[in-house]
Amino acid sequence: MDLVQGILSKDKRAAARLITLIERKDAAAKEAIKELYKYTGNSYVIGITGPPGAGKSSLVNELVKKMRSRGKTVGVIAVDPTSPFTGGALLGDRIRMNDLTLDEGVFIRSMGSRGSLGGIATAAYDAVKVLDAFGMDYIVIETVGVGQTEIDIVKIADTVVLVLVPGLGDDVQAIKAGIMEIADIFAVNKSDKEGADRLVTEIEMMLELSQREFDFRPPIVKTVATTGDGIDLLEAKIDDHIDYMRKSGKLEQKRKEKVKQEFKELVRDHISKLIFKQNADVIELLLEDIVCKRLDPYTALEKLTKKILKEDGEL
Amino acid sequence: MDLVQGILSKDKRAAARLITLIERKDAAAKEAIKELYKYTGNSYVIGITGPPGAGKSSLVNELVKKMRSRGKTVGVIAVDPTSPFTGGALLGDRIRMNDLTLDEGVFIRSMGSRGSLGGIATAAYDAVKVLDAFGMDYIVIETVGVGQTEIDIVKIADTVVLVLVPGLGDDVQAIKAGIMEIADIFAVNKSDKEGADRLVTEIEMMLELSQREFDFRPPIVKTVATTGDGIDLLEAKIDDHIDYMRKSGKLEQKRKEKVKQEFKELVRDHISKLIFKQNADVIELLLEDIVCKRLDPYTALEKLTKKILKEDGEL
Repeated sequence: MDLVQGILSKDKRAAARLITLIERKDAAAKEAIKELYKYTGNSYVIGITGPPGAGKSSLVNELVKKMRSRGKTVGVIAVDPTSPFTGGALLGDRIRMNDLTLDEGVFIRSMGSRGSLGGIATAAYDAVKVLDAFGMDYIVIETVGVGQTEIDIVKIADTVVLVLVPGLGDDVQAIKAGIMEIADIFAVNKSDKEGADRLVTEIEMMLELSQREFDFRPPIVKTVATTGDGIDLLEAKIDDHIDYMRKSGKLEQKRKEKVKQEFKELVRDHISKLIFKQNADVIELLLEDIVCKRLDPYTALEKLTKKILKEDGEL
Repeated sequence: MDLVQGILSKDKRAAARLITLIERKDAAAKEAIKELYKYTGNSYVIGITGPPGAGKSSLVNELVKKMRSRGKTVGVIAVDPTSPFTGGALLGDRIRMNDLTLDEGVFIRSMGSRGSLGGIATAAYDAVKVLDAFGMDYIVIETVGVGQTEIDIVKIADTVVLVLVPGLGDDVQAIKAGIMEIADIFAVNKSDKEGADRLVTEIEMMLELSQREFDFRPPIVKTVATTGDGIDLLEAKIDDHIDYMRKSGKLEQKRKEKVKQEFKELVRDHISKLIFKQNADVIELLLEDIVCKRLDPYTALEKLTKKILKEDGEL
């Protein structure tokens, strides 16, 4: 199967196969992405993040249905750093999405990445490129918004929706404080529960206190994903933000930043891997010295750098 | 103030100051770590992780009190990737720890890292080294166990405690599945709540199904951190695991793996930063080409690699 041709002719199996190769860090994946890259940039990417238990998957499910009812095609990449499964959406509320996966205009994929040190972000970015080249109108990228890597991933989206729920306790305060500045829209899900109005007030207060200058003040939408309440409004607010991004020129600006962040991540990821591969013997000796305390890690790093980089430089 | 001398003579202000420099990625921090490194390796490191809302901080609080009552000194590093604050423990239930911070034998620090792409892990590892050289008997490193980075950080601990709570829904299933294999001990906190027994059964089933060969089968301890229930047992189980690690030779083995993981992270982090600094102009041009789709990111990476690395090689 020619993956590139398959994807350009909207073959979902080809997309699924390529994402599997991306997850496995197969060299063929990189070659395919090289070819597909020039066909990317047409999808609008929506990031959805929030703490575990916020009901992100149900919310995404409802949003995708709305987008479909307007004739739009949608790809969903759910990054689940703790999932032991790859190659499929198998756990918990993912199962509810099954009705959507039969729809030709929808592609849903969850990406697990357990055990790999780094590389999740790069893999997620590449999966987005696959669905972009595939021709999806929208790509939804969903992460658990409490980890640094997961926040970094969702940050590359054109529009970021932060999903919160009432009653998750003190930890959620910290989460809100930390990631609220990446949010373009707040969804207060499970808003039929006690504390929803207080949460809305808290978010409003934080927006007040943040002293950010808003060209687009992040709206707060109350939703109940399980009944569909508030989803129409959430979709409308997303549309408003898309409009704003396009008309203000911010979209172009954000995409430039995204390219830069992706490239940085790629350099971090690949160059260090290459270095470890090419210098395995030297690194093994350095590690022994570090273990025995003959050498500290930073001095070891300087020795390694001197050996491998053409140009010398202070770390 | 000579930070190195300060830390070696157990001056907490010196430790606090150095950790701040580490967070700021100040060059002086690296020099201090170089000097301190040979004094490390004597503390026993306990990792505590779990989803937001599991009550990790309260549990750590109780554990620290127990350790203190046995005359042990304890350092706590709480990695909070979403916290906008650095240099102090300011949010939510951290405040409850205040009574402990007045104790000379305790040092508590939360490390935020908002906005930095990468670098949390390296900073956390260095903070542990500071408290190790300081001479703490125990170092507790606490993370939110749902992000990849945070799981990687806690993995370097000698003993890992995974804190779970009943009733966090489907998402928690995924969390358990993903990180349970790094857990040496399970704490089912808030075990006075409904569903605690079911959670214990679920964990037991997962241990059965995991087909891991256990030399030390992870015990499951029910706790209520707010009342102190179960903390004695948890502490006893931690002691059992410490004993096991020491006598089986696993401690030495795990510390070698830790050195390797830390060094990999250091290479990833520092070499990519160095590359970006030394090649800013070239990278700027490459980024422009990527934005305009004249070049794909992987080909750009290959060009960059060829320019900077002494040895040529396939990525």
